[in-house]
Amino acid sequence: MSKGKVVLAYSGGLDTSIILKWLQDEGYTVICYIADVGQDDDFEAARAKAIRLGAEKVFVEDLKAEFVTDFIFPAVQANAIYENRYLLGTSLARPCIARRQVQIALREKAQYVSHGATGKGNDQVRFELTYYAVAPHIKVIAPWRDPVFLKKFKGRTDLLEYGREKGIEMPAGDKPPYSMDDNLMHISYESGNLEDPKNPPPEEMYLKTGHLVDWSDKPETIRIEFRDGIPISAAISGEKNPETDPLKMYLWLNEVAKRHGIGRVDIVENRFVGIKSRGVYETPAATILRCAHIDIEGIAMDREVMRLRDMLSPKFAELVYNGFWFSPETDFLLAAIAKSQELIDGWVDVLCYKGATMAVARYSPSSLYDENIASMETVEGYEPGDAGGFIRINAIRLRAHREILMNTPIDRLSAFKQKSRALTGTYGAVISTNAVIDEN
Amino acid sequence: MSKGKVVLAYSGGLDTSIILKWLQDEGYTVICYIADVGQDDDFEAARAKAIRLGAEKVFVEDLKAEFVTDFIFPAVQANAIYENRYLLGTSLARPCIARRQVQIALREKAQYVSHGATGKGNDQVRFELTYYAVAPHIKVIAPWRDPVFLKKFKGRTDLLEYGREKGIEMPAGDKPPYSMDDNLMHISYESGNLEDPKNPPPEEMYLKTGHLVDWSDKPETIRIEFRDGIPISAAISGEKNPETDPLKMYLWLNEVAKRHGIGRVDIVENRFVGIKSRGVYETPAATILRCAHIDIEGIAMDREVMRLRDMLSPKFAELVYNGFWFSPETDFLLAAIAKSQELIDGWVDVLCYKGATMAVARYSPSSLYDENIASMETVEGYEPGDAGGFIRINAIRLRAHREILMNTPIDRLSAFKQKSRALTGTYGAVISTNAVIDEN
Amino acid sequence: MSKGKVVLAYSGGLDTSIILKWLQDEGYTVICYIADVGQDDDFEAARAKAIRLGAEKVFVEDLKAEFVTDFIFPAVQANAIYENRYLLGTSLARPCIARRQVQIALREKAQYVSHGATGKGNDQVRFELTYYAVAPHIKVIAPWRDPVFLKKFKGRTDLLEYGREKGIEMPAGDKPPYSMDDNLMHISYESGNLEDPKNPPPEEMYLKTGHLVDWSDKPETIRIEFRDGIPISAAISGEKNPETDPLKMYLWLNEVAKRHGIGRVDIVENRFVGIKSRGVYETPAATILRCAHIDIEGIAMDREVMRLRDMLSPKFAELVYNGFWFSPETDFLLAAIAKSQELIDGWVDVLCYKGATMAVARYSPSSLYDENIASMETVEGYEPGDAGGFIRINAIRLRAHREILMNTPIDRLSAFKQKSRALTGTYGAVISTNAVIDEN
Amino acid sequence: MSKGKVVLAYSGGLDTSIILKWLQDEGYTVICYIADVGQDDDFEAARAKAIRLGAEKVFVEDLKAEFVTDFIFPAVQANAIYENRYLLGTSLARPCIARRQVQIALREKAQYVSHGATGKGNDQVRFELTYYAVAPHIKVIAPWRDPVFLKKFKGRTDLLEYGREKGIEMPAGDKPPYSMDDNLMHISYESGNLEDPKNPPPEEMYLKTGHLVDWSDKPETIRIEFRDGIPISAAISGEKNPETDPLKMYLWLNEVAKRHGIGRVDIVENRFVGIKSRGVYETPAATILRCAHIDIEGIAMDREVMRLRDMLSPKFAELVYNGFWFSPETDFLLAAIAKSQELIDGWVDVLCYKGATMAVARYSPSSLYDENIASMETVEGYEPGDAGGFIRINAIRLRAHREILMNTPIDRLSAFKQKSRALTGTYGAVISTNAVIDEN
Repeated sequence: MSKGKVVLAYSGGLDTSIILKWLQDEGYTVICYIADVGQDDDFEAARAKAIRLGAEKVFVEDLKAEFVTDFIFPAVQANAIYENRYLLGTSLARPCIARRQVQIALREKAQYVSHGATGKGNDQVRFELTYYAVAPHIKVIAPWRDPVFLKKFKGRTDLLEYGREKGIEMPAGDKPPYSMDDNLMHISYESGNLEDPKNPPPEEMYLKTGHLVDWSDKPETIRIEFRDGIPISAAISGEKNPETDPLKMYLWLNEVAKRHGIGRVDIVENRFVGIKSRGVYETPAATILRCAHIDIEGIAMDREVMRLRDMLSPKFAELVYNGFWFSPETDFLLAAIAKSQELIDGWVDVLCYKGATMAVARYSPSSLYDENIASMETVEGYEPGDAGGFIRINAIRLRAHREILMNTPIDRLSAFKQKSRALTGTYGAVISTNAVIDEN
Repeated sequence: MSKGKVVLAYSGGLDTSIILKWLQDEGYTVICYIADVGQDDDFEAARAKAIRLGAEKVFVEDLKAEFVTDFIFPAVQANAIYENRYLLGTSLARPCIARRQVQIALREKAQYVSHGATGKGNDQVRFELTYYAVAPHIKVIAPWRDPVFLKKFKGRTDLLEYGREKGIEMPAGDKPPYSMDDNLMHISYESGNLEDPKNPPPEEMYLKTGHLVDWSDKPETIRIEFRDGIPISAAISGEKNPETDPLKMYLWLNEVAKRHGIGRVDIVENRFVGIKSRGVYETPAATILRCAHIDIEGIAMDREVMRLRDMLSPKFAELVYNGFWFSPETDFLLAAIAKSQELIDGWVDVLCYKGATMAVARYSPSSLYDENIASMETVEGYEPGDAGGFIRINAIRLRAHREILMNTPIDRLSAFKQKSRALTGTYGAVISTNAVIDEN
Repeated sequence: MSKGKVVLAYSGGLDTSIILKWLQDEGYTVICYIADVGQDDDFEAARAKAIRLGAEKVFVEDLKAEFVTDFIFPAVQANAIYENRYLLGTSLARPCIARRQVQIALREKAQYVSHGATGKGNDQVRFELTYYAVAPHIKVIAPWRDPVFLKKFKGRTDLLEYGREKGIEMPAGDKPPYSMDDNLMHISYESGNLEDPKNPPPEEMYLKTGHLVDWSDKPETIRIEFRDGIPISAAISGEKNPETDPLKMYLWLNEVAKRHGIGRVDIVENRFVGIKSRGVYETPAATILRCAHIDIEGIAMDREVMRLRDMLSPKFAELVYNGFWFSPETDFLLAAIAKSQELIDGWVDVLCYKGATMAVARYSPSSLYDENIASMETVEGYEPGDAGGFIRINAIRLRAHREILMNTPIDRLSAFKQKSRALTGTYGAVISTNAVIDEN
Repeated sequence: MSKGKVVLAYSGGLDTSIILKWLQDEGYTVICYIADVGQDDDFEAARAKAIRLGAEKVFVEDLKAEFVTDFIFPAVQANAIYENRYLLGTSLARPCIARRQVQIALREKAQYVSHGATGKGNDQVRFELTYYAVAPHIKVIAPWRDPVFLKKFKGRTDLLEYGREKGIEMPAGDKPPYSMDDNLMHISYESGNLEDPKNPPPEEMYLKTGHLVDWSDKPETIRIEFRDGIPISAAISGEKNPETDPLKMYLWLNEVAKRHGIGRVDIVENRFVGIKSRGVYETPAATILRCAHIDIEGIAMDREVMRLRDMLSPKFAELVYNGFWFSPETDFLLAAIAKSQELIDGWVDVLCYKGATMAVARYSPSSLYDENIASMETVEGYEPGDAGGFIRINAIRLRAHREILMNTPIDRLSAFKQKSRALTGTYGAVISTNAVIDEN
């Protein structure tokens, strides 16, 4: 008798094939679920393989369009970037994949979901938090943390042997000297030779940003149009008939970025599980979109709204990275960010060249920088001396602070404050010692 | 009888020469002060001009070294960037210049300081807040906001006429179609043709990043070494005898960056005085240093310290931009940032090529990413199932939230919450409509 | 011929009566506007006085209900408190008053608005920012900053003389030794004897919180009910037929608070114009509502949403205090706060007694604290050892940090880090010197 | 043969006595450690009991003074309060206790530490994070999460039986209908009858704030003096010879607060482990100190430093609550907070009466509010019209925003923005519908 149904996130590769067989060995009925988020895989081959290995059902789900519109575009609106550099290509895909997985589990009345993510990484967290957030009563089987599984498979050898025994095809060719994960947004590379952060990534590793020698010698300017902070079209600047379908636009931008080598980053980052790890990423289209989005905000967003949103943006990236896409706090941030994006409309021209992007021109119908406003300021209600009053009012605090500093006994001042006071010595007596005072 | 002494920030150009004469006309004794922060000027010619125009004294002050160590390096430690893009080249120079000016005023017992900044810009604020912060009782003469001055000089014609009358040499040649401000850290370009944000900046404008056609075809890797988050040496990676003198290192990095076109940015930014403006900037060396500094932090800084510092970093940039370098709040932030930089030691290799920078290797003696730590985790006190407990504890909130969502009458839910609940319909009934459910 | 129409915020008092006459002297047609925000005034007398003094029209506007629902309640939702203590009673009234004033100006086609706020205070800012935000082209006449007005009225004597000359009644009786401002939300007291922060406020000053000797000897428990974070009813706990009309409920809570002396605070605060000032406030009902609102959030709000909202709450209070109620950034915060208040439903019992409030019981239909959830945790998906994994994962960073600390040469450590390392000496050698080690 | 040495945090109560015996049963040598943080216990009886039950050694450590100076006072400086209400009485004691425990373990060359905290609470986290942070290689035995222990002791009956069997005295008398934890800073009450948040806490429960009927009928004013934000003396206001010893001062303030019923709070709070819980707390002295400290900052702290510190203060409280006292991020915050406290000097008078505290007078030698500064503003460098310029500059953004709002097609505006625009209709046509326009 079956212990119950499991929906397994299946890739067609060796590891999840082993998990598929092992779950069956353990007495579960297994439904395989293959998510297409644009990775470079043969989905029909994977489907056939799953069936051959005994899966009760196989779901191959095309999530590419919803990945772009429901996950990537909100991240673009938020200017989401993790630790100043990582554009969250994997982090955004996980909740998209896991949501569908748990939806299938609910539909198929499966009590369990399972995945092949390892026990020290971020992905296990992202998958499972999504499972629990969408279906609080679901049960999770994580083989790479399961004592029974770990006891059985103590190393690579055990896995290979078990695979052969179960008739799983072995991966052909040499293992690359690093591991990879790809989807339509990015490729990440880690482990292997990359584990030593002193080793630079080899040029031949890169797949989504072409190779340096192939990069175009001609700078190209791309026009991205936004409405409410969402990219709604893209084209070569000056050309007509821009691409407006979100997925097609995104894939087209990937191509553009590839021929200019745009979107590489090599970092040591902080995982949610408390470990630092080194990763190299290629995120072509999103790098252009980020550049354009920040630029359109420059012209159309109020300064103080920008300050507030900028406080929230790193928090948003952190939540996404940590796996909290489906959470009350991310809902809260998404609502705030959506509010900030009202009237973030217009276009931006982004120059792409040899790995670099740069906004070089922009226009917004809701621009807060325009001639009417400028003239308003001068014609009415703004007087020449206003800035003087503004400055003097702002200086009141600073002057009061300096007075206190000068009037406090020196021994009550910290070293820092003493140095600060010494700036002017006793009012005019000394100036900084490295001054070259030239008197004519 | 003199109305008193004024220390005037003097550049040798037409405008400050006119101010020099006008102040004399108004009855002041004028001391000229020329700050050398690395701009491309002939200081001896300026000194001679000031004397010829009647300045009582002229101070030419070499501030280049202190600009680098006291202003630029703390900004590097803070990862200071204004509105995600501007590296604050002018903002950092102003307090450096104004501090010395007011020190001279105190030494020379001048009651007044004066500058030639305009009445709609940021620089007037930066100058004057520094004056007041260092010397609370100083008086400021800002001709471009002075009703008497503005009444006398209604336009460019009045200025030119007055200049000719007073024997001031007129600028030779055509006026460039934009205004410029330079120092050793950057050049900024604005107004003129650049005022329309739809106009891309012309390639020939750029002075500090060379011209695209001249950029080297060979990527170059630069090694920057840090101690406590401060750059202490720089060299071509692999070469010996790095440059360690702060100023010389900085200027050498400017050269490197120039031959690779590094450091351009074109933005619409928010001025402190409430206006948006368009600026184009070249900040060569600082762009490399920022890239390297963020990277060394990646390996040597604790994650949660990074989170906290990253909350403060935009505020620091804002304060610097707005002119509050000398203020209790900037002191507060500098103390916090200094604390965060303890043990941010090591080197980073930065690849420079055709406008782009990318960290590609790094090493830190205080690295929080290393093999000993990794092994510590596995050998003692870290068990295979730990991540499972970690995830389940993190999921408790999310599951409780989902329960509430499902148990609340639908009419009490906002549209957003309704959509959120509909994710899974009534537990298994429906999944999202665009799903292609393939059943084998 | 008239210079144009002015809508003057008129109180009926001496100062605004003088302004009324002075504006007429200066050639303006004056429309008087009296806002009823619940202050203790005779509005009909003020109306008659304005007419007698030559106002072209008088508007007496009852803003009490909208003050409660549009301004006070959003502040309750936000837990808005300025500098940890001030509940913003004046700050919230000003945009309410100024919005109607400028609406009248637009309707009456007046080019000008005017107010009697002084030149060093916050109220001028709050009034005028609202004027400009609602009607960007309006012109403002602020007599207390007007050079002509200030030259004419150099002191109190000039004002009294002008008043007598113009037939304005003089205030009867002695001037109280402090100034007051009241509305239905609060009374503020400042200046006069209160200017010295060493002087405690006299008991007899207080009007809205009764006198200490009269406070009830019987604690009273009040039940406040919320929906989406908004108070929807109030009653003595256990009694039926609670008050549900917002304004009546608010006034009833004022009465309750008065008999228990609730809502006093005495502070030195920071004005937006850079000056510190001392103020004493009575804010009766809002103190109870704040206590209750924080408590209902405790049970119904997700922890991480609370963290995020708590980051924004001081900013919201600051914006309100500074006069930016009508601004894009306050709109942004209001949208975020509204999102956080979804399902903040239920009731709270607040004990009131002799100046103190304390929540003592609460219930929420959307409580995140309840038995079902507790049982869920234990029954499914939460295992005994989970907390251990959670702790060990959280400890990884701390252990890595300690290792680095111990392995770094002592001279590379700051004093702080040296002390931190010395906590355990060289692992076991020494413990802190004040330890009394008792060995049996 | 012994499995090794364990240092057990021992209270003398039933549970830790059982753990002591169980550890011996399991083969460990047990050293008992009793921390005196001011709780109401008989330490000599506990010591004797431990010896009788077979402890190899017993350490009774008086940590009261260091608890006050090293943990409570920094929290006072930080205005630390968790979720707006809880003063962290338990959270601050735990790292103090655990630090000494692990120091003893290092000294005694024990490989293990153990505690009796339960598996769903905060204290297990606080203890263990401190252990790991101070001694990364230490091993932790947490019986209440240990499968062996939990299997043996399935309920209260098993514990009692084992206790009787091992000769452990049973607690006399009835168990109170809630659990308690006390130290010199506070008592916390939870569980039992308090588990239902609708049950108000019974008056007779309170031990550290006396009983309402006993509270003094005479308000009392206490003067607290600060230096660098640290309380340095306390006395009845007006009396000489204040208490200056930190511990004695603290205990004296506890007495004062007790006779006035100060320091109660009843809340539903968010635990670090993701569960909400209901707690009632009495924190007498710290409530007075918090009131005074916030007040002295009001007069002596710069406004913008206060803003920045106030951003960090909730984060500090969260870290302390969650058990991260010994962490790089708390070190970072402590450094920043210490910086903010420079020159926070002076005294505050706090009125205490029937459960309420209120600052009523204060003086600071480094006051930023004083007559010299006020006069400075008027005499030099501050002109009557300055505030006008200040306001108009601040209004520029708001006016530009309103223009955009009015010029945007209505269908491009969100409901919120539409409402915002409708404020003034089409400039003068309509005003809000509930307006009563009285025309005379």
